[in-house]
Amino acid sequence: MTELAELPATPGAARTQGRPRSSRAHEAILEAVLDLIEEGTTVEALSMEAIAARAGVGKATIYRRWAGKDELLLETLVKLKGPPTQPLGDSVRADLIRLLSVVGQKDQRAVRVMPCLMPEVSRSPEAYRIWQEAITEPRREVMREVLRRGVATGELRADLDIEVVVSMLISPLLLHRMVRWNPRLDEVDDLVEQIVDVVLQGVAA
Amino acid sequence: MTELAELPATPGAARTQGRPRSSRAHEAILEAVLDLIEEGTTVEALSMEAIAARAGVGKATIYRRWAGKDELLLETLVKLKGPPTQPLGDSVRADLIRLLSVVGQKDQRAVRVMPCLMPEVSRSPEAYRIWQEAITEPRREVMREVLRRGVATGELRADLDIEVVVSMLISPLLLHRMVRWNPRLDEVDDLVEQIVDVVLQGVAA
Repeated sequence: MTELAELPATPGAARTQGRPRSSRAHEAILEAVLDLIEEGTTVEALSMEAIAARAGVGKATIYRRWAGKDELLLETLVKLKGPPTQPLGDSVRADLIRLLSVVGQKDQRAVRVMPCLMPEVSRSPEAYRIWQEAITEPRREVMREVLRRGVATGELRADLDIEVVVSMLISPLLLHRMVRWNPRLDEVDDLVEQIVDVVLQGVAA
Repeated sequence: MTELAELPATPGAARTQGRPRSSRAHEAILEAVLDLIEEGTTVEALSMEAIAARAGVGKATIYRRWAGKDELLLETLVKLKGPPTQPLGDSVRADLIRLLSVVGQKDQRAVRVMPCLMPEVSRSPEAYRIWQEAITEPRREVMREVLRRGVATGELRADLDIEVVVSMLISPLLLHRMVRWNPRLDEVDDLVEQIVDVVLQGVAA
């Protein structure tokens, strides 16, 4: 024990080391936040009282872990979405298909929760910042890297506006999988491939 | 008066003919629905009582005009969005730019109300149907017509999946203007033109 205690602490290790009970509480709190949002509680109306009651913990347990609702919501969303899928470094086409195939597909719960956040995202600068930081920006960045690689190899036009191309790739899938924007798209088997091929032909060098 | 009464009735004419007071009530009711949604009332929680109170009319006045909440919401959304912008029949490129330039731009109020509807649209089949019928489908249809024209003249590929192309054109703008999906897109002056040009090059015959 003495030897172990002398090892340098790993950040975050204290949370999981021999504290199964706290870890269960942590999990229950994040789950409670998702449950409440999914059931229609707006982010604005989401209270620490309601979260504590739903998770079966005291409010103090929440405040020991998070400074406030914003921090709690941020961690909940980061955990819900998980880390962004990474490219394999194959062809630009294969990597784009890989990244787009998971848009709104990995977790059905995320698909249900995301539309519930939209009113708050459009109203509150803080909710907007959390949504950008936790969800949209990390995924855009992975896709930018694939496109930059395509520009570097001469496959894609050098004057490409990468932000526009990223939006053209992700938005049709995101909007459709989040709110089923056009029911006719359900019948398109190779939706991801078609989107990638139209964009790649449109931005070919 | 007798002569006028003998004229064949025009559908809907009774509503406006010499009834300025009723017309004002009609308007006030539609406005009340938008106000309440914009302030955060979910479509599910929206009650005829609250709408009547906000509009300053009795509940009976509402029920004389609409069979229920769904019909009222449908008319509110149709009126909020107005008729879809029509193409001029110039080049496919010019018409697409014309149609896309107004996505989420004509009415700032619509931009604020739409994200508030998303939770309900994703939860309720009835809200989904209204959203499709009142808003998304009429706009998609106008754009399909422009693309079909391009296929007919040989400008665009004949094997085009028009549903996919329509989604690729509208979704990036819709998602960004509705919830400001990527703040970096704010700095792109010619966003509409870039999207149209990438897609047109991608689907050229």
